[in-house]
Amino acid sequence: MGLPSAAVIGEFDRMWDDLHPVGRVASTGGYRRFALTGEDHTLHEWFAEQSVRRGLDLTSDRMGNQWAWWGNPDEAPGQGVVIGSHLDSVPDGGAYDGPLGVVSAFAVIDALREQGFAPDRPLGVVNFVDEEGARFGVACAGSRVITGALDADRARGLADVDGVTMAEALRAAGRDPHEIGRDDETLRRVGCFVELHVEQGRALADLDPETSAVAIGTNIWPHGRWRIDLPGMANHAGTTRLEDRQDATLLAAELVLAARAEAQRHATVATVGKLRLEPGGVNAIASHATVWLDSRGPVEADVRATVAALSDETAQRGGTIVEESWTPTTAFDAGLVSQLRQVLGDEVPLLGTGAGHDAGILATAGVPTAMLFVRNPTGVSHSPEEFAEQDDCHRGVAALTKVVQDLAAGAGSSPDQAGPS
Amino acid sequence: MGLPSAAVIGEFDRMWDDLHPVGRVASTGGYRRFALTGEDHTLHEWFAEQSVRRGLDLTSDRMGNQWAWWGNPDEAPGQGVVIGSHLDSVPDGGAYDGPLGVVSAFAVIDALREQGFAPDRPLGVVNFVDEEGARFGVACAGSRVITGALDADRARGLADVDGVTMAEALRAAGRDPHEIGRDDETLRRVGCFVELHVEQGRALADLDPETSAVAIGTNIWPHGRWRIDLPGMANHAGTTRLEDRQDATLLAAELVLAARAEAQRHATVATVGKLRLEPGGVNAIASHATVWLDSRGPVEADVRATVAALSDETAQRGGTIVEESWTPTTAFDAGLVSQLRQVLGDEVPLLGTGAGHDAGILATAGVPTAMLFVRNPTGVSHSPEEFAEQDDCHRGVAALTKVVQDLAAGAGSSPDQAGPS
Repeated sequence: MGLPSAAVIGEFDRMWDDLHPVGRVASTGGYRRFALTGEDHTLHEWFAEQSVRRGLDLTSDRMGNQWAWWGNPDEAPGQGVVIGSHLDSVPDGGAYDGPLGVVSAFAVIDALREQGFAPDRPLGVVNFVDEEGARFGVACAGSRVITGALDADRARGLADVDGVTMAEALRAAGRDPHEIGRDDETLRRVGCFVELHVEQGRALADLDPETSAVAIGTNIWPHGRWRIDLPGMANHAGTTRLEDRQDATLLAAELVLAARAEAQRHATVATVGKLRLEPGGVNAIASHATVWLDSRGPVEADVRATVAALSDETAQRGGTIVEESWTPTTAFDAGLVSQLRQVLGDEVPLLGTGAGHDAGILATAGVPTAMLFVRNPTGVSHSPEEFAEQDDCHRGVAALTKVVQDLAAGAGSSPDQAGPS
Repeated sequence: MGLPSAAVIGEFDRMWDDLHPVGRVASTGGYRRFALTGEDHTLHEWFAEQSVRRGLDLTSDRMGNQWAWWGNPDEAPGQGVVIGSHLDSVPDGGAYDGPLGVVSAFAVIDALREQGFAPDRPLGVVNFVDEEGARFGVACAGSRVITGALDADRARGLADVDGVTMAEALRAAGRDPHEIGRDDETLRRVGCFVELHVEQGRALADLDPETSAVAIGTNIWPHGRWRIDLPGMANHAGTTRLEDRQDATLLAAELVLAARAEAQRHATVATVGKLRLEPGGVNAIASHATVWLDSRGPVEADVRATVAALSDETAQRGGTIVEESWTPTTAFDAGLVSQLRQVLGDEVPLLGTGAGHDAGILATAGVPTAMLFVRNPTGVSHSPEEFAEQDDCHRGVAALTKVVQDLAAGAGSSPDQAGPS
């Protein structure tokens, strides 16, 4: 993959520097950019400023997602070529997850302008709100509400750790909570969506370095969340003989290690990041343990097999397992993925991802969608250590520019029918 | 061990019925009897009523511990023979831990009166406040404050989960928080203290049933609390390959199982009842785990060896271990223990205990102290299932009556010198 011009790179780096201090936690170097906070407001103002600088038409949809248009999408319904991502973060998150896609999208506009490109289809840059769900607990709230995947009443009722509901937070931000909801008018403008994102995980670093700075996303792995409850018996930690104990902590520990072993065996991932012991006193044998299991993998049957094995392990210990959520494989648009391969070359790796994205929500809602991933040399994400090489970020801009050139040139053709330009 | 008279048993059972509903949680059958609450007030009124019914002189010390005296302890400094225990409970605790000692003490007074016994030494029944520390987090606060083991300023500053300090709670109960403190005048009255308590753990059930309804306490096991911190690396649960993870949950699970194995190996007990994962999200690999370890055992060197092995396990995983508290063996008064054996018979089992008690605080403060334990057939304590057979409770009264008869007959002799009566 080549690099953009020095001018485009210079502007990219300037935008990156703009965002650097917003919501940054000095002690860790991580970010706290949560929905409907002062930091979020600053990021929205920054997005508006970038739109104005480029002469794009800025609109906000019913959920407050920002759309900056080059060309009038209402004159060509279902033709808009949309790029972008989100600007919010998880608690103590990294700089790349989200912002890389938004900054790259504006840099693509710059590159196209520099080349004198005249798009046949309207081009849009989007900033989805509340992708991480860090404040109100539901990921991709911005795209879920406008597609109807998240009911507006339910969204308004979501509360943060301080008990502030989304409705109250919207009101505090000067907005009318009753405006949020499904937004078909906005969606009608979108012909396709390509979200560029930093790679999460470390698959590309092991491939040929020359051809793996950028990958094409093919799908979002099937994933689910399970709650495992394990029984114990309340008793005194000082006076109860080992052989008389029914200690739920021991069962939880065994389940944690079993989850790892079964994931290894079935080529999936399984994680216990949340665990609760009751009554939770230092000198009290646990009468109950709750273990939350997150499991995902490239192949649905393998994830199901991982969980089935852990269901057996749970039952053997007298516990119960409940599926809290399950999302099957979200495949990106086959025609669009194939078009991206033709544009970028067959040597560009294809990558499934274990993380959820607004691109997945739009794909499920029927929007032709694909993703590009920029190589992450350590694989770390959702952490201050999240990183991508500057050169790789610039290569991401070049790749996305080629993709948009191709997509926006074929006016009137839907992605499924479009051939390479 | 014989049984008390039908009249004494009848009165014992009546007292037991009195206490049954106070602070009872209908849904579990457990108790919530916390310091300086309405339930606590009811229990104190009950204690006062029992004292009045028996013509005992009721006093409260500087911490609010209640003392009911038969005879004037100020006329015979250092001669008072004190029995009793506490009436408060842990959250969802059992009916026996504490109340059995207080009810038995009043029943002993009844039995002695019935026999026409005239004590040569003053007899006292005590109700220590806040033994469990359920509300303010420090166990044995009542005995600790009057012996000076807990500084009055520190006690006043202790806060409950709602942020209410002990000083505020005292004021709300109509008391002057500045009255609490070390109380040498009260302690000067106490010649010895014998606390009867339900067995915690299940050692007596395996012995000859005929001779093991009651045991003599010899010591409180050495015990300590350690905090183990284990490192991880924050990362995304969906996208991070198993081999790229540094998952603190896995290390915590290994430590939990190692604690059990090392306790087994060293003939101690070790418990993890509290565990914290950070950041604690279902889809976040834990960047840090904190495991609290409670370990105790009959032999100090064995407890130390258990913790040393776990320190190695912690270091091997890049973690740290910090001792949060350590209490060496608290031996009860050797002369008093030997006197109890002579009174009750050599066949009565001797028992160390892994739990803390007001008796341990008084022993550490230099008061000649011993304990009697009433058999617990299941070993369960600090739980609604805590239990002792009614007959065994009555046998406890008979045993304590014999002990007090013996101790109170030898006026002027200190327990260390006193022979059997």
